[in-house]
Amino acid sequence: MTQSCDILILGGGPAGYAAALEAASLNKSVVLVEKDFLGGTCLNRGCIPTKLFLGASQAIAEIQAQSRLRLGQGGFSLDMRALQKRKALLLSGSRQAMAKALEAAGVRVVQGQGELLGPNQVLVRPAGETTREDKEVRIPFDRLILALGSRPAWPKGLEPDGEHVLLSDHILDLQEAPASLVVIGAGAIGIELAQFFLRMGSQVSLLEAAPQIAPTEDAEISAQLAAILKRQGLDLQAGVAVRGLERKHNRGGVAVILDADQRLDADKVLVAVGRKPNTDVFGLDQAGVVRSERGAVSVDAHLRAAAHIYAVGDCNGRMLLAHAAEHQGRFAARHAAGAITGPYRSGAIPFCIYGDPEAIRVGPTAQEAAALGLECTVSRAVFAANPVAQAFGAPHGLVKATWNAGKIIGVSAVGHGALHFVSAAVIMVDQGWTRDQVEEMIFAHPTLDETLRQALLAPQEPL
Amino acid sequence: MTQSCDILILGGGPAGYAAALEAASLNKSVVLVEKDFLGGTCLNRGCIPTKLFLGASQAIAEIQAQSRLRLGQGGFSLDMRALQKRKALLLSGSRQAMAKALEAAGVRVVQGQGELLGPNQVLVRPAGETTREDKEVRIPFDRLILALGSRPAWPKGLEPDGEHVLLSDHILDLQEAPASLVVIGAGAIGIELAQFFLRMGSQVSLLEAAPQIAPTEDAEISAQLAAILKRQGLDLQAGVAVRGLERKHNRGGVAVILDADQRLDADKVLVAVGRKPNTDVFGLDQAGVVRSERGAVSVDAHLRAAAHIYAVGDCNGRMLLAHAAEHQGRFAARHAAGAITGPYRSGAIPFCIYGDPEAIRVGPTAQEAAALGLECTVSRAVFAANPVAQAFGAPHGLVKATWNAGKIIGVSAVGHGALHFVSAAVIMVDQGWTRDQVEEMIFAHPTLDETLRQALLAPQEPL
Repeated sequence: MTQSCDILILGGGPAGYAAALEAASLNKSVVLVEKDFLGGTCLNRGCIPTKLFLGASQAIAEIQAQSRLRLGQGGFSLDMRALQKRKALLLSGSRQAMAKALEAAGVRVVQGQGELLGPNQVLVRPAGETTREDKEVRIPFDRLILALGSRPAWPKGLEPDGEHVLLSDHILDLQEAPASLVVIGAGAIGIELAQFFLRMGSQVSLLEAAPQIAPTEDAEISAQLAAILKRQGLDLQAGVAVRGLERKHNRGGVAVILDADQRLDADKVLVAVGRKPNTDVFGLDQAGVVRSERGAVSVDAHLRAAAHIYAVGDCNGRMLLAHAAEHQGRFAARHAAGAITGPYRSGAIPFCIYGDPEAIRVGPTAQEAAALGLECTVSRAVFAANPVAQAFGAPHGLVKATWNAGKIIGVSAVGHGALHFVSAAVIMVDQGWTRDQVEEMIFAHPTLDETLRQALLAPQEPL
Repeated sequence: MTQSCDILILGGGPAGYAAALEAASLNKSVVLVEKDFLGGTCLNRGCIPTKLFLGASQAIAEIQAQSRLRLGQGGFSLDMRALQKRKALLLSGSRQAMAKALEAAGVRVVQGQGELLGPNQVLVRPAGETTREDKEVRIPFDRLILALGSRPAWPKGLEPDGEHVLLSDHILDLQEAPASLVVIGAGAIGIELAQFFLRMGSQVSLLEAAPQIAPTEDAEISAQLAAILKRQGLDLQAGVAVRGLERKHNRGGVAVILDADQRLDADKVLVAVGRKPNTDVFGLDQAGVVRSERGAVSVDAHLRAAAHIYAVGDCNGRMLLAHAAEHQGRFAARHAAGAITGPYRSGAIPFCIYGDPEAIRVGPTAQEAAALGLECTVSRAVFAANPVAQAFGAPHGLVKATWNAGKIIGVSAVGHGALHFVSAAVIMVDQGWTRDQVEEMIFAHPTLDETLRQALLAPQEPL
């Protein structure tokens, strides 16, 4: 038994880290338990390494765009091994910075796997070792914040082997690009990694079971995204179900068996069909924590799973986004510390797909707004006339806005550099801007943001 | 004598074009007189071609950044002649699109040089030809909007010859990059063009008479910008006065004579020391239009140079920015049409320097705020820990915010992709955001915008 704490946090990813710093800033004694690396999926196996790969290879996409216009010649050959070394360096640096920030804030970090020993006590066992009593720590707490994260999921028949059938966790560690790759699942993760390996010279097929890639996005946006990616050489098929895989033990590859008598041979297969919440913490049930059908921790309007237990980030299944997780983490810390009492309110949350093109969404898609029964109009503009898009040889894509009662409720976009205006879109949707507000604002010229402006000022049409 | 109009506009650049469309949308009869090309300096000899050049060559900067990290090898050789052809195509396409939009809006475009024939009549002569009575047009008007633009200026001794001593107008037409280039004047134009030719392989020196490059920017921002550009291989000297030029008629180059017994030899010299307003319209004085000492058209709080004459954009000397000009143009059109009566108010105006790095500013610099006598604090964050900046191998730069009475009054930044958050900064400065508002907003992760967030949430220090 060691010293008790006011707030104990299980999980040191974006949600847990933000919660720990927030709680410490409110003068609470805080313990953060992490079984693996600080930073969670986002830093170690998700957004950050993926963006490193895309950033390091962005020049390749830009050279291709200029070469298509016959404006010049060249190429860039990215060294995967050097990139992996840099990744390791950057990630460990970030983890060290996080550890230092936690230490400076007075947060105690305990390494190990936590389990509940009753309503107000956690037992932490060293992770990945045989349990030895002398290494265990018992920590009594007043409030518990579950920030357990999520992990890649796969359906039957697509079991990963870490060798030829990979999860995002595995593929981000590859020391060389495969000659051919089939990506199963065209959500953000699948789309981003497919683009990266296409840039690296792999022959890439991207398969999606839903009728469109980026299934959570506006149908028009998705169609444009698909058209742009196809033009870049991606073999893209939506509305196809994968029946199973055939591992070729002799030659080391995999055959992806599709429904329609079709099979795709590849050196590697990436399974990126979704993620499931981590909730495998012993003792949660006894503490009154309930899990939904989809396996997420059920929470109330205050993000509470029980009277004194909060669940934030991916594990509550609300939104699998690092920035949403951080925001929830800060809220839970404040609520647990008694600094606030009202229910959780997130404001507008941006959703992004990286690469070239980029796609963003804030608020509901036009289709979602219609399904909600809102009387909506939409307005749009294409990037074709934007001089910055033209300068990058990337004039394809569009911005689409959804309006209700004269106010912006959603912005979706796809195109080169669409992330340029994601923060502006967050503010506009959050504040419910009117057309007049857009008209009064001065947008820098020339910028990609001007296509957002154009879309918002364009004639509004019924959905 | 031809048909009269409600509103006559002299000049078809950003200000005049925006004014014409706005006035037409208010059901006024509008005539737009342009002596050269629609689009003015911005489209034809300024922002747009410069951004085309920077966009087309951006891959070169990115390859250099990744190569410095030893992540790969390669290069991109941009064909200047092909780029010039593309420029011509894009510009003429844009001009045609403008002409179509004006026609569709019912604006009559008259090609030629306008002069005032009295308080309510303009005479338009064919530009660049011998005056022939039969080609002249007299157009009576009710209200006049002067949108005359500006042109490059030069001090004595730095007269351009269009061959070796160039203005921005000339250098944007070069069919090949010079082996060596001296850029005199390190404002936005000089900095952007110096970067472009550096990418093209020219040996480039950038000279600035003021103690810092980007003289209108925050001193810290300017110092970082200088450090980044030097690291890229730019020979940069601030605080140096150019005494004169020596044209070498035998070998075709130029020697730039500096104060301190120093001379720089170069194939080409770009003189980018400033611009002066165009006000050389016959008849302005008689109409009561007054010019300031600096040669700009003096305007009142309604942007009026006389009771029924407005002056907008560069020619009134307020701000030499296309987006500010457009905004003024729209205001003047509305005011001239009687649709509004209050004084002109611009809101926050962004100022941008393009390239890699980019620099942005909204609101006053910390130094300007102090000079205004405002009690200010500043907060800052560097890009070093930003994963997107790291991914592009461009971790240098910073974001700096200026606060007064708990509200953001200014944002300055320099770094790779700093333009990503210019629109968000415009909104925050315009609305005078508090720290709490920043804290509540969800910023997409990972983005460069998060360094803006970090800067705004960092501890505030006295100026």
